[in-house]
Amino acid sequence: MIPTQIAVLQFAPEKGEVQSNLDRVGEMLDGLNADLVVLPELFASGYFFNSTEQAHNLSESATDGPTVSRMCEWAAATGATIVGGLPERDGDLFYNSAVVVTPRGWLGTYRKTHLFYEETLHFTPGDTGFQVWTVTDRNNRSYRLGAMVCFDWFFPESARALALKGADVIAHPSNLVLAHCPRSMPIRALENHVFTATANRTGRESNGRETLEFIGQSLICSPSAETLASASGQEEGVFTVRIDPRQARQRQINPYNDLHVDRRPELYAS
Amino acid sequence: MIPTQIAVLQFAPEKGEVQSNLDRVGEMLDGLNADLVVLPELFASGYFFNSTEQAHNLSESATDGPTVSRMCEWAAATGATIVGGLPERDGDLFYNSAVVVTPRGWLGTYRKTHLFYEETLHFTPGDTGFQVWTVTDRNNRSYRLGAMVCFDWFFPESARALALKGADVIAHPSNLVLAHCPRSMPIRALENHVFTATANRTGRESNGRETLEFIGQSLICSPSAETLASASGQEEGVFTVRIDPRQARQRQINPYNDLHVDRRPELYAS
Repeated sequence: MIPTQIAVLQFAPEKGEVQSNLDRVGEMLDGLNADLVVLPELFASGYFFNSTEQAHNLSESATDGPTVSRMCEWAAATGATIVGGLPERDGDLFYNSAVVVTPRGWLGTYRKTHLFYEETLHFTPGDTGFQVWTVTDRNNRSYRLGAMVCFDWFFPESARALALKGADVIAHPSNLVLAHCPRSMPIRALENHVFTATANRTGRESNGRETLEFIGQSLICSPSAETLASASGQEEGVFTVRIDPRQARQRQINPYNDLHVDRRPELYAS
Repeated sequence: MIPTQIAVLQFAPEKGEVQSNLDRVGEMLDGLNADLVVLPELFASGYFFNSTEQAHNLSESATDGPTVSRMCEWAAATGATIVGGLPERDGDLFYNSAVVVTPRGWLGTYRKTHLFYEETLHFTPGDTGFQVWTVTDRNNRSYRLGAMVCFDWFFPESARALALKGADVIAHPSNLVLAHCPRSMPIRALENHVFTATANRTGRESNGRETLEFIGQSLICSPSAETLASASGQEEGVFTVRIDPRQARQRQINPYNDLHVDRRPELYAS
């Protein structure tokens, strides 16, 4: 079998410098050999906004704004499906969103469900719910791709909802500042029997009152809780692994247990 | 504050030797100084039954059978609340159960929701759902105790249901054979902001056709994903830590995020 190549990109954007951040990512993706690339959350805008006004001024359309337009160019040039985060403006509302583009253009938008910290001041909690799209790799084999953003990892319901909707791979654009996500993602992958691809940023940002330090450590995990690729806390780069996304569909762990069939939702709290 | 002492007991029962296993645990608990002790799953009966007949012959009442009677004696003698697993017979039905006893006697029974491997041949899936009891430590301070059994850990809904019902501490009697539980429990504790106490067994058992090896590594975890106590894969003993169970109630992680309030069940799959 020819594997599917999935990648996460880790770098330190500069807040507010959309064009130079886009140029930077464009350079890092030049010559890319991958079927799926995950970019960080808010990868071109930066994260820790000084004000709601700044956040809103940097927001753009999730279907034809400058960031998604560049993402579509990269997808067309490399043949990859690309998932990345941007501050989305939709009329009078603003979301922390992840956009999925393919070589044929925009495919979908996920609006972050669980906003973290001062994001709650600038953005509306997402209304899309957790979505799964069927995408194809460069060998035209299809697999199912879901998306969640950063702090969504903390809530096991996020990856669970994606898995129950059939995700083989969960793209996870992130701007992590909490310590425990890298050790949690193998567990998210295991408990849902999916691949996960967490693309985190590095560096620091100040909002003028406080400074956040992002923890890097982007990682790709397998359904059996292996870390297939991982970055350090500071390095920048594109980290690629070869997988068979359809391995995620073998949810029978022994002759008596199937990880989805065995669920008993009638006994779970909502 | 005087801490609450919680403990997990790890040992290797001998299958079918109920009296000697009970005697063994009684010796290990002699002189115990703890407010809560968690014993392994099926700690007096053994686990890997040769036949359904053997499993059923070893099953007993969860309220006044020999195992729970001894547990009540230990609780009365030490002042501890004790949680441990037994094969429960209730009329014509058989469950893999965890029983909670206090110095005043039987308090409650949890019937395992997610049966693992050949357990599915011998037991009925639990019908109690995930329950939380208010218990008191020896200083008469109350806290909320929930129970889940072994493979329930794999399903994040188990600990989630207990946390949403107000558990401060999750007792987790286990007979683990899968590798990843010990690294998952700090994540279960973190994502639910609870303490967890996993009491696992050691040793091996054959059902006459196949041998299972139990992984030990009992552990107690904090709401911030720390491992407060842990056992090796083979050693036997009682492992105790001092905690304040009410730390579990501080679910506000910053001025903008509360781990329970931030949940959005309307967007989760059931």
